[in-house]
Amino acid sequence: MTLAQETNVNVVLRKQGEIVLEERPVPTIEPDQVLLNIKVTGICGSDVHYWLHGGIGDFKLKEPMVLGHESAGIVVAVGDKVNHLKVGDRVAVEPGVACRKCEECKTGRYNLCLEMRFAATPPIDGTLCNYYAHAADFCYKIPDNISLEEAACIEPLSVAIHAANRSKIRSGDRVFIFGAGPVGLLCAAMAKASGAGHVSMADISPQRLEFAKSYYTDSQIVLQRPDAGESNIEYSRRTSKAILETEEKADVVIDATGAETCVQMSLMLTKNGGCVVLVGMGSAVQNIPVQEISAREVDIRGIFRYCNTYPRAVKMISTGSIDVKPLITHSYPLKNAVDAFEHVKSGRDGAVKVVILG
Amino acid sequence: MTLAQETNVNVVLRKQGEIVLEERPVPTIEPDQVLLNIKVTGICGSDVHYWLHGGIGDFKLKEPMVLGHESAGIVVAVGDKVNHLKVGDRVAVEPGVACRKCEECKTGRYNLCLEMRFAATPPIDGTLCNYYAHAADFCYKIPDNISLEEAACIEPLSVAIHAANRSKIRSGDRVFIFGAGPVGLLCAAMAKASGAGHVSMADISPQRLEFAKSYYTDSQIVLQRPDAGESNIEYSRRTSKAILETEEKADVVIDATGAETCVQMSLMLTKNGGCVVLVGMGSAVQNIPVQEISAREVDIRGIFRYCNTYPRAVKMISTGSIDVKPLITHSYPLKNAVDAFEHVKSGRDGAVKVVILG
Amino acid sequence: MTLAQETNVNVVLRKQGEIVLEERPVPTIEPDQVLLNIKVTGICGSDVHYWLHGGIGDFKLKEPMVLGHESAGIVVAVGDKVNHLKVGDRVAVEPGVACRKCEECKTGRYNLCLEMRFAATPPIDGTLCNYYAHAADFCYKIPDNISLEEAACIEPLSVAIHAANRSKIRSGDRVFIFGAGPVGLLCAAMAKASGAGHVSMADISPQRLEFAKSYYTDSQIVLQRPDAGESNIEYSRRTSKAILETEEKADVVIDATGAETCVQMSLMLTKNGGCVVLVGMGSAVQNIPVQEISAREVDIRGIFRYCNTYPRAVKMISTGSIDVKPLITHSYPLKNAVDAFEHVKSGRDGAVKVVILG
Amino acid sequence: MTLAQETNVNVVLRKQGEIVLEERPVPTIEPDQVLLNIKVTGICGSDVHYWLHGGIGDFKLKEPMVLGHESAGIVVAVGDKVNHLKVGDRVAVEPGVACRKCEECKTGRYNLCLEMRFAATPPIDGTLCNYYAHAADFCYKIPDNISLEEAACIEPLSVAIHAANRSKIRSGDRVFIFGAGPVGLLCAAMAKASGAGHVSMADISPQRLEFAKSYYTDSQIVLQRPDAGESNIEYSRRTSKAILETEEKADVVIDATGAETCVQMSLMLTKNGGCVVLVGMGSAVQNIPVQEISAREVDIRGIFRYCNTYPRAVKMISTGSIDVKPLITHSYPLKNAVDAFEHVKSGRDGAVKVVILG
Repeated sequence: MTLAQETNVNVVLRKQGEIVLEERPVPTIEPDQVLLNIKVTGICGSDVHYWLHGGIGDFKLKEPMVLGHESAGIVVAVGDKVNHLKVGDRVAVEPGVACRKCEECKTGRYNLCLEMRFAATPPIDGTLCNYYAHAADFCYKIPDNISLEEAACIEPLSVAIHAANRSKIRSGDRVFIFGAGPVGLLCAAMAKASGAGHVSMADISPQRLEFAKSYYTDSQIVLQRPDAGESNIEYSRRTSKAILETEEKADVVIDATGAETCVQMSLMLTKNGGCVVLVGMGSAVQNIPVQEISAREVDIRGIFRYCNTYPRAVKMISTGSIDVKPLITHSYPLKNAVDAFEHVKSGRDGAVKVVILG
Repeated sequence: MTLAQETNVNVVLRKQGEIVLEERPVPTIEPDQVLLNIKVTGICGSDVHYWLHGGIGDFKLKEPMVLGHESAGIVVAVGDKVNHLKVGDRVAVEPGVACRKCEECKTGRYNLCLEMRFAATPPIDGTLCNYYAHAADFCYKIPDNISLEEAACIEPLSVAIHAANRSKIRSGDRVFIFGAGPVGLLCAAMAKASGAGHVSMADISPQRLEFAKSYYTDSQIVLQRPDAGESNIEYSRRTSKAILETEEKADVVIDATGAETCVQMSLMLTKNGGCVVLVGMGSAVQNIPVQEISAREVDIRGIFRYCNTYPRAVKMISTGSIDVKPLITHSYPLKNAVDAFEHVKSGRDGAVKVVILG
Repeated sequence: MTLAQETNVNVVLRKQGEIVLEERPVPTIEPDQVLLNIKVTGICGSDVHYWLHGGIGDFKLKEPMVLGHESAGIVVAVGDKVNHLKVGDRVAVEPGVACRKCEECKTGRYNLCLEMRFAATPPIDGTLCNYYAHAADFCYKIPDNISLEEAACIEPLSVAIHAANRSKIRSGDRVFIFGAGPVGLLCAAMAKASGAGHVSMADISPQRLEFAKSYYTDSQIVLQRPDAGESNIEYSRRTSKAILETEEKADVVIDATGAETCVQMSLMLTKNGGCVVLVGMGSAVQNIPVQEISAREVDIRGIFRYCNTYPRAVKMISTGSIDVKPLITHSYPLKNAVDAFEHVKSGRDGAVKVVILG
Repeated sequence: MTLAQETNVNVVLRKQGEIVLEERPVPTIEPDQVLLNIKVTGICGSDVHYWLHGGIGDFKLKEPMVLGHESAGIVVAVGDKVNHLKVGDRVAVEPGVACRKCEECKTGRYNLCLEMRFAATPPIDGTLCNYYAHAADFCYKIPDNISLEEAACIEPLSVAIHAANRSKIRSGDRVFIFGAGPVGLLCAAMAKASGAGHVSMADISPQRLEFAKSYYTDSQIVLQRPDAGESNIEYSRRTSKAILETEEKADVVIDATGAETCVQMSLMLTKNGGCVVLVGMGSAVQNIPVQEISAREVDIRGIFRYCNTYPRAVKMISTGSIDVKPLITHSYPLKNAVDAFEHVKSGRDGAVKVVILG
């Protein structure tokens, strides 16, 4: 094995607030693994959250951890038992490796595997480095008409695919999405690719909605903040009522914010018998208008990461069903990784997806 | 048409708190209706609620209304266009007649029909009377081995069937139910009839759980009230943790109480990827641990009444899959209807289902 | 009510082989009906089949019958109980009216209703006339951006929607379709609108496939006829093997021909665990390679007409998900209806869908 | 590791027609395997078929192979990576080990895995021996109230569970089963455990049906053979018509025979919109009345072995939902294995399931 570069720089979160570049040995591979030269890694909100807060929910940073999990790269070495990949193949990296043996794995819901090892979820190191060893069957070869930048977007797209799968969007459906960040936008793209007839997008940021106008959405709603003294549920009732003056109720509403008001409005804006998908992760306990569930059979479905999405994503990008390129607004070389994180944190210059090039 | 009795006594809720017996003309029938001599009517919690509170949610009593909607009777006249019933047939009465023309009706979810006319939901008169005219296709002939008392139980059983349908209980599943009232008990029966391997039942009343012991449940959990100063979510976390010391998490949890704590615990007691069914109707807005939905893909499904349950219920009772007879603990003649309502209100003498005989 | 034209010309199939124009009284309407001035009617293969053969399967022409069931028109009178339509509305006509009362109707599969009254299926008169009375709830108002010609195409499109619904095509799927006639082409359009990544189309006619090239298909396969002395199953094995040299197996295969060889190849070309949808109607008994079902879990799903497709179709055409306009290749005035039928029979001049303008 | 017996006798099919007992070394185990002392193995029709015919379909015996795949045993050694089992545990053995990496495995349909290694399917050795090394996660610990004989029945029960899962039998459903052999009988048990209201069983053997009378079936139909000169389809039409004189059409029909006539009648006996499940494996190509599929939306679903059934089976047997004990009619010691095969071949003495005790 001859490596294009001998160094293996890793972007390490040393502790809350401190990202450093660290050189580490090039990893060795197991017989069912491949060694990847990581070329592109998107920065996810969760990466930034670990950096700024040192943890998400029950996952706490206890020791230094490599960041990054939205990656694509090139195969530079192949384990003995690997047949479907060869050196030089360009691949999208599915960053979680499940145990393959538990009930969840065997029934096809491996995202719920309790033994899941997911890149950049403590204590598992992420993919923001030059060389990364990974289970070969979680690396998906991409055809020539997909760039590595696009391949890196398959990770956030997977969340949207999983949301669409679970919500059972059907052709002609009306879909309403809260949150015009990368995942919300990809949910819009995926809704359209599933046949949605009309996709509405709501966000508090007019700038984000401006972007959304040219990205798989048919109407855009600028949300205002609650009035002084107004409770969340009062705000949600008032706002959803106002929204319904111009929008029909939707077959499927996707919340990609996690905000209590958006979850509340999601239920209010769904048709009888429709469904709400919770993609965003917000406060652990929220005030929910359960009457919408009981009296109108609006269902709530949760999404935890994704499963079985990569092969489908490769096909959809390759056949043009979904165009992820417009989302990549900025890129940085690996050596300037900290600048990339600062950029995402600031949200400046219309940043949607910032990627780091290896 | 010769009627067995010439009078048509109706049990009328004149206003909140006042039930009277009123004689009304025997109704005439449309070509697609039958005239029924109502023989048995179970009293539902909602009947009592209208009596005591004058309304439920958005449904307010504005003018006198006949109560009752859990009925069975005998066909005494048949409209010209009715082929499947004849005079003398014993039938279970599905008390809601949908419009048959809207999208909800045509897609098989007629319980969500906005034009639904449902007995004893204001302003529609109920079935607690001697003679009742009803759409023939919502009257289901029962075989000889089903009594009219059992047939009257098909109405609450329908809620349980609909809950089981929507939750997709499968053979071997573990099911946990909150609320040992008639609907909760029927949910237990239906879970078993759907193949559930273990049914657990929780309630605050040891007496109700005592009954449950001999009615389709494998374990019974007596719930305590929250401690002084303890919030609902604190109580639910503490209690569900205690429950999980002896109980495994369930594939399906059904809440038949509507209480916020029970809804909270429902989510906590469900397996990853499982589902919670909300059968009870409680406060319109509740504090919900949404993290269980987002991080564990526990889904919530609402139940509003039921649809397409009667034919299935007739088969299940007839073939012995479900025995509803033990639920009928007390009966009153129609002339003593008010005593029956008082009995249900008091809950005395181990009352589960109190019926009025016509 | 003032009618634009006083005459009501009907296209009547007097007996096998004989179509005549007949003037009939303008029909009166029931309270839940509307009177329609039919403006456009597409000719279906079944219309031609009744004309040439006097029957299809168990449906035999016994007395004269008006032809046509793919229609759109303008409301000219409204029954007393009709609220959602008014005079002047432009509507697509769903040509079958179900009983609304049987188990099939109530469970949302009204296409299986045994009491279905379907236009131009003996003995029910069809829609090829000036004035047609129809159940109002089976008339769907179309928005301004849909022409009446397009609205008439919703009937064959409905078959394709129903096929897609039952096959559960998902985004990225590979779909293979046999038969490049109007229904097969609409199945291609619908597959794409459901997110299919690749749609392959096979037909025996290079001319039809030429049309398909510009209509929602990614690859086209010209089928040859069986060799002399070759059995159908031999032909199918040989041909499907040849097809698989350039095509991957499909997630969903739709047969829109009814031909035994195509049904055989459908099973052979489907992925493990995939599904075959039978849209075409051919010989009642066919030689089927059931081993593909048993050893590879390839399922077969049948399609009988459609249900609950019109609202979805209106949305899809209106939002541009599907473009049906290219299919309408020829049109004739009502008075020349027989010429239109002759044209469809001949298939000349690249005819795809021939419509009659009222 | 101390073994109770030092010898490891294997029941080897040397070639078509020749079964011999062979002593082989006790296998060593991988880190994720356990070593099992096999205690009970049921004989399957496929074992007998390999013995008598040297192959099934594409699977041909090319070198000597150990027979048997319906086994239960006791853990005698545990690999280093195995946590959920310990020496002395009694387990049911799921005899196929999938690759865990392909799309089929990851989506929960591992029975369709192309790399599946299934016991006693050439060239993989079976379980009829004293000591067997197996992937630990395909060994399922059984509770004290399940005997090893019952545990061995989980393998054929799994086929029935998979059939029930795919057919979506619901409570109250009417189920019709062709074939009163072990798998057919277990399909009946599973139908009842899924809530079926009425289970009918048809077979050509009055003796088998006599057994079925006391085993989860409500009606039994003795089939006659076709008349001289009668084609299969003629026979099936005549016979199914006769059956429908006393039986209603079923929601679900399961064919556990593979015979062409039974598959034909399966379609004819299914309700509109119902489904036929093909469990038996017969001729590769059969004459099928496809009109039942097209005109009545009767679906066909294939079953290839099973997946994700063992945990469910353990729960169902343990909770008493299904009683498999009556099926075990005869047993033989391992040294008399050939006698056991002769017994199954003869079918004498009311044999249902013959087991070999290790």
